[in-house]
Amino acid sequence: MLEACHRYFHDAARVLGLSEEVMEILITPRRVVKVELIIEGDEGHRYHHRGFRVQHNDSRGPFKGGLRYHPSMDEEHAAALANLMTWKTAVVDIPFGGAKGGIDCDPQQMSRTELDTLTRAFVDQMKEVIGPTLDIPAPDVNTNAEVMGWIMDQYSHSYGFSPAVVTGKPEHLFGSVGRDEATGRGVMYATREALKSQDRSLSDVTVALQGFGNVGSHAARLMSEQGARILAVGDHRGGVENPAGLDVPALVTWQNHVRRDPESF
Amino acid sequence: MLEACHRYFHDAARVLGLSEEVMEILITPRRVVKVELIIEGDEGHRYHHRGFRVQHNDSRGPFKGGLRYHPSMDEEHAAALANLMTWKTAVVDIPFGGAKGGIDCDPQQMSRTELDTLTRAFVDQMKEVIGPTLDIPAPDVNTNAEVMGWIMDQYSHSYGFSPAVVTGKPEHLFGSVGRDEATGRGVMYATREALKSQDRSLSDVTVALQGFGNVGSHAARLMSEQGARILAVGDHRGGVENPAGLDVPALVTWQNHVRRDPESF
Amino acid sequence: MLEACHRYFHDAARVLGLSEEVMEILITPRRVVKVELIIEGDEGHRYHHRGFRVQHNDSRGPFKGGLRYHPSMDEEHAAALANLMTWKTAVVDIPFGGAKGGIDCDPQQMSRTELDTLTRAFVDQMKEVIGPTLDIPAPDVNTNAEVMGWIMDQYSHSYGFSPAVVTGKPEHLFGSVGRDEATGRGVMYATREALKSQDRSLSDVTVALQGFGNVGSHAARLMSEQGARILAVGDHRGGVENPAGLDVPALVTWQNHVRRDPESF
Amino acid sequence: MLEACHRYFHDAARVLGLSEEVMEILITPRRVVKVELIIEGDEGHRYHHRGFRVQHNDSRGPFKGGLRYHPSMDEEHAAALANLMTWKTAVVDIPFGGAKGGIDCDPQQMSRTELDTLTRAFVDQMKEVIGPTLDIPAPDVNTNAEVMGWIMDQYSHSYGFSPAVVTGKPEHLFGSVGRDEATGRGVMYATREALKSQDRSLSDVTVALQGFGNVGSHAARLMSEQGARILAVGDHRGGVENPAGLDVPALVTWQNHVRRDPESF
Amino acid sequence: MLEACHRYFHDAARVLGLSEEVMEILITPRRVVKVELIIEGDEGHRYHHRGFRVQHNDSRGPFKGGLRYHPSMDEEHAAALANLMTWKTAVVDIPFGGAKGGIDCDPQQMSRTELDTLTRAFVDQMKEVIGPTLDIPAPDVNTNAEVMGWIMDQYSHSYGFSPAVVTGKPEHLFGSVGRDEATGRGVMYATREALKSQDRSLSDVTVALQGFGNVGSHAARLMSEQGARILAVGDHRGGVENPAGLDVPALVTWQNHVRRDPESF
Amino acid sequence: MLEACHRYFHDAARVLGLSEEVMEILITPRRVVKVELIIEGDEGHRYHHRGFRVQHNDSRGPFKGGLRYHPSMDEEHAAALANLMTWKTAVVDIPFGGAKGGIDCDPQQMSRTELDTLTRAFVDQMKEVIGPTLDIPAPDVNTNAEVMGWIMDQYSHSYGFSPAVVTGKPEHLFGSVGRDEATGRGVMYATREALKSQDRSLSDVTVALQGFGNVGSHAARLMSEQGARILAVGDHRGGVENPAGLDVPALVTWQNHVRRDPESF
Repeated sequence: MLEACHRYFHDAARVLGLSEEVMEILITPRRVVKVELIIEGDEGHRYHHRGFRVQHNDSRGPFKGGLRYHPSMDEEHAAALANLMTWKTAVVDIPFGGAKGGIDCDPQQMSRTELDTLTRAFVDQMKEVIGPTLDIPAPDVNTNAEVMGWIMDQYSHSYGFSPAVVTGKPEHLFGSVGRDEATGRGVMYATREALKSQDRSLSDVTVALQGFGNVGSHAARLMSEQGARILAVGDHRGGVENPAGLDVPALVTWQNHVRRDPESF
Repeated sequence: MLEACHRYFHDAARVLGLSEEVMEILITPRRVVKVELIIEGDEGHRYHHRGFRVQHNDSRGPFKGGLRYHPSMDEEHAAALANLMTWKTAVVDIPFGGAKGGIDCDPQQMSRTELDTLTRAFVDQMKEVIGPTLDIPAPDVNTNAEVMGWIMDQYSHSYGFSPAVVTGKPEHLFGSVGRDEATGRGVMYATREALKSQDRSLSDVTVALQGFGNVGSHAARLMSEQGARILAVGDHRGGVENPAGLDVPALVTWQNHVRRDPESF
Repeated sequence: MLEACHRYFHDAARVLGLSEEVMEILITPRRVVKVELIIEGDEGHRYHHRGFRVQHNDSRGPFKGGLRYHPSMDEEHAAALANLMTWKTAVVDIPFGGAKGGIDCDPQQMSRTELDTLTRAFVDQMKEVIGPTLDIPAPDVNTNAEVMGWIMDQYSHSYGFSPAVVTGKPEHLFGSVGRDEATGRGVMYATREALKSQDRSLSDVTVALQGFGNVGSHAARLMSEQGARILAVGDHRGGVENPAGLDVPALVTWQNHVRRDPESF
Repeated sequence: MLEACHRYFHDAARVLGLSEEVMEILITPRRVVKVELIIEGDEGHRYHHRGFRVQHNDSRGPFKGGLRYHPSMDEEHAAALANLMTWKTAVVDIPFGGAKGGIDCDPQQMSRTELDTLTRAFVDQMKEVIGPTLDIPAPDVNTNAEVMGWIMDQYSHSYGFSPAVVTGKPEHLFGSVGRDEATGRGVMYATREALKSQDRSLSDVTVALQGFGNVGSHAARLMSEQGARILAVGDHRGGVENPAGLDVPALVTWQNHVRRDPESF
Repeated sequence: MLEACHRYFHDAARVLGLSEEVMEILITPRRVVKVELIIEGDEGHRYHHRGFRVQHNDSRGPFKGGLRYHPSMDEEHAAALANLMTWKTAVVDIPFGGAKGGIDCDPQQMSRTELDTLTRAFVDQMKEVIGPTLDIPAPDVNTNAEVMGWIMDQYSHSYGFSPAVVTGKPEHLFGSVGRDEATGRGVMYATREALKSQDRSLSDVTVALQGFGNVGSHAARLMSEQGARILAVGDHRGGVENPAGLDVPALVTWQNHVRRDPESF
Repeated sequence: MLEACHRYFHDAARVLGLSEEVMEILITPRRVVKVELIIEGDEGHRYHHRGFRVQHNDSRGPFKGGLRYHPSMDEEHAAALANLMTWKTAVVDIPFGGAKGGIDCDPQQMSRTELDTLTRAFVDQMKEVIGPTLDIPAPDVNTNAEVMGWIMDQYSHSYGFSPAVVTGKPEHLFGSVGRDEATGRGVMYATREALKSQDRSLSDVTVALQGFGNVGSHAARLMSEQGARILAVGDHRGGVENPAGLDVPALVTWQNHVRRDPESF
């Protein structure tokens, strides 16, 4: 991952004619923070985890990027993704920099209470380096609006009412309207624009989606609303297929019975 | 270094009968912060360095430990030294925890202005994680009272007048009286007490000192004031010897013409 | 209680020749704060309690007074005790005013975890009206050093490291040395001085104590160290008696096996 | 009042099938604050009053509700009105909770200077529990834009320039345009919509108004602008009637010579 | 300057029938701050300057006004200009008061690094009396968007990320879009409206401009875009003339090779 | 005054061989603040005054110096006295710099209420540039402990409980014990030491004192307690004389019936 990310960066840097020194400066994160997290689980045993936040670049505005809860999360991983966030916010020209972070835990093995407690421990250790004008986390793999609500609440204990410390909060806790489906809607827009450049439209095409979490399910629904026929969807647990087109709302209803599994910001 | 430090820790932990899990928790630092430092040198070229702060444990009070400027400084190094600080503050029972940090630069190759600028860049990147009730740096290898004054001044820019953010400040900037010679005085006291347990005193012995920086020179002076005969002193640049005893005040006067090179806190 | 307290006040006010209006002003608390506390118990059921803080007078310095956990705690009770604190701090001439508060819960029916959670909920609701220069709680009936530690910790979440927000903290959390036995020591001093005015001393007398919690046990030990013979001690659970004098250290050792039950500040 | 408010609540709660315990939790205010207010009047005599603020519920956003200056103001009164504010802000779905407060004084018996001084004393005692993200007062019976300006000014002494601490400020002190007539305009809208559901309009009806303060006079003017014939208006001082319709602008002009007497938020 | 300003003020005051006492109160600034600025120049010599900030009136909102770097800057000068700012913000009815300030230096004799350092020294000495809700500087003679960026950066060192402390920042540092050309655009608008009152339009007229810095060049471009023929422009270095009309875009391109010299806010 | 002060400074500077440039830097105050003060007097008329604070030098610690209420107070006066404070704090080696300020009012013509109001207006305008770690005022001509209490109270409105913002507070408001008589005691000590160098003592001499305010009366009492015979005392209102020695305690008792008139810090 980090390798791919660095290769793309170096390709671009060479095109721009940047010196080795400037490349090294650009690739190095401004700040890396690693913290120790110890919580007591529901059954009284201890969880011992590591939390990470890599703040890559804030030249264009406060750091911005998701929090990922995954056993494979480590400093190198976070650094590669933080790097990408810097270029992403710059390309779409919003006044933010790039960051990424998370915890090396496996949310599938933890109860909701344990995830709540672990998230709050993470905030207690990271609170000095995040904040509305400093670094604003967002949901990512295995984190969602509820986790953002826990972060906002715990951060507010230390700094007063601070809804602006995270994006992707629940709507009733001052979250943005439409945030939930925003990434999936972006997929639909990107596809529509790509087709437009080929003089085609969504109603002309059939679609197969890899991934049907927060991103994929909204993308499927919105593309199908624009006339696309969704032939197949799948995730790491398997897939469904219907040559006549899937009934997306029915699929989504079924999906809502399953634990949420959102993809990248 | 880290290895030695871990071995001592594990020896002690085994004597106490600690479980593997508790040992891992104790050895893991609470927080590790790495920052990127870029400054413009006197000749217009760029310095690109890394700053480190490992905050090992604050159960007994705010983090406390030195800042070391040395090309070999890295995360592993700082972690080992931070670990030792935790046990050191606990053994002497002062209400502080353990931390350590520094910059991977070579002060011998830098001007005073460049060191000032680099130190202030370090504070700007670290300011959220240090502070009078959070983490209080101190002088260490290649840093001294003047560097602490720069830190206090730069930190005060962000948080208001804060002399309590560092120890080891110059006396006229609210530093403690006697701080300058405190480590050397400790060496003298330790030696005196060790001799006492053998029914001997400092006036009975001859002394050879390895290191004649801030620690060694004060130790030599104070032991010689108590009657000890200082036969030889040396550092990484060479040594001097006199079987009749060295004239320590004369040596110190000569030493003051040389750039300061203080040893550990 | 409130009645007795008001009667003493009016007696004193009449001696001083205060007008009815000034009396009313003096008796009225500056501020009364009542909060709702809802926590989840260990077995999943809900506790619904009321917390109180009556701030009677701060003309001479920040409010000061204990927190009492007792089913009978209510606004009237707290007001009477807060009133007494104002006169108490004035009589001993320390720069503090008078306050009192607590929760209408029965600690004997709650687990340590539940008390911890309830205390933190109380701090979250009261945090804006207490503080190191505003109102400084202390242990009282059914609260102790550990409860003060919870308050300090929870308050510090909101306002940064604040050991000064409570007195009566555990010694290793920056509490005052000797605080634990201070009230009992005061009983001994008062008795000694009273005897002195009769040309007697503690070694001349026999003593019976009503109450053997934090106050009584230290008083007994200290008076016995000064030569007094402790004939009998008792509390709400019963009493022991020995005409030859009780072995106070043995009694205290036995007492330490029992749940702590400290008395007034 | 409190009784009526509780009866409505219990009717609604029973329809929703809430348990007794949940009802008690919902009816109990989160925080009640009572303060003592002593000011010197224009003639040198002392005023001794009580100020109240009942913060009922902030689950949906910061507390919000008016300040009422009336001799009948007490804790019970404020609690009932605070309760209603919670349901009111929820029904119109704005991100605020419910609160209410005031002072047990009679503004008709006080000079403008005395009201100013009393209001500032109230803010000094309440300042820790109100604020732009915590609890935002508004005008109510016997308080108006000028009183809100005093509150904003006094609060800003303690916390810096804070126009957001109150709504209903004078327009030239950062108040909202149209706030003055907003409640009266709401009466007109509600009446218009009610008539619409009966296939009628304001130009079809004649109107009699009970109350002609800030609410009634704007409602009369706006309804008359929409074609309604205002037959009669009255307040606690008497009434006027004209079967041919009153000249509302003339009445308002006359009203402006009289001391303002605004009604509920 | 001050004289002219006072004369206009007195003329207006006499029309309004203000008393001598009220006039004196209105003319006197609320606060005058003078600071000493000492910096080291590029060649090692010292610059010793005076900085000024006159805060004339903030009854209608935070102080607002430019910073001027000019050898003739002194307290009297700043006071006259601050006075004018009060009337200017009132006339256009924006919620700000009036202020003005600057440094008695000659930017033409200083390097960009020296100006940066001097500006930051000014902020360090003035930081307590400026701020987003207190006093918000703007560019003026010899200061521009880059200088505002230095101010924002230095102020943020002390008070956290504070883009709102100045207006006229660079767009990529959160400055307002269109701010750069706003004063010139105002000249065009004012001219257009003046012509309209004479039943003429910009396409009917020829224009000669005195001054072709930030104000004049944008005014010329915008008036020429609306059809005006720009016959002549000139500044303190000379002028150009073309009876057929100047090619304004070409002139501006040439101008951009020259050091920027913006005029008044 | 300013002239004398400058002459002494230049004499000393020439002895030290300082350059003209360094002299100018040392003589220039770091910051001068002038504010407009408008209050309503007891009879409804307006007072329009100027307040001053000259902060001369804070290299050695926070600014420190008195506040003087006198019709002759102006910027030049304050600057001269601030200058002297810098050298005074340096000579006695306390970690403070030098400042001075005051108001150009005549306290003899004002009521106690008017002085209270004027002092609070001064604090409101100066609050950003004074503070416990920034600039700490003290009593001076025509100001006393009560005025310091007003300052502490008004400053605390804006910044929370801040007894450290002034010295010379009343003892019961956290003032230092002995502060009241400290300046007079200093006169006695200085006289005693001067006599000692001539092998004489206070019991050998007779004394005449010019000034019998806060300084003179304490000096007279303390010198007479050490055996000196006080022959004569006088102030601007006249004098008394007794060749046999005055009864100082009787004089002081008489003095206490007169309005206080303290001299310099």
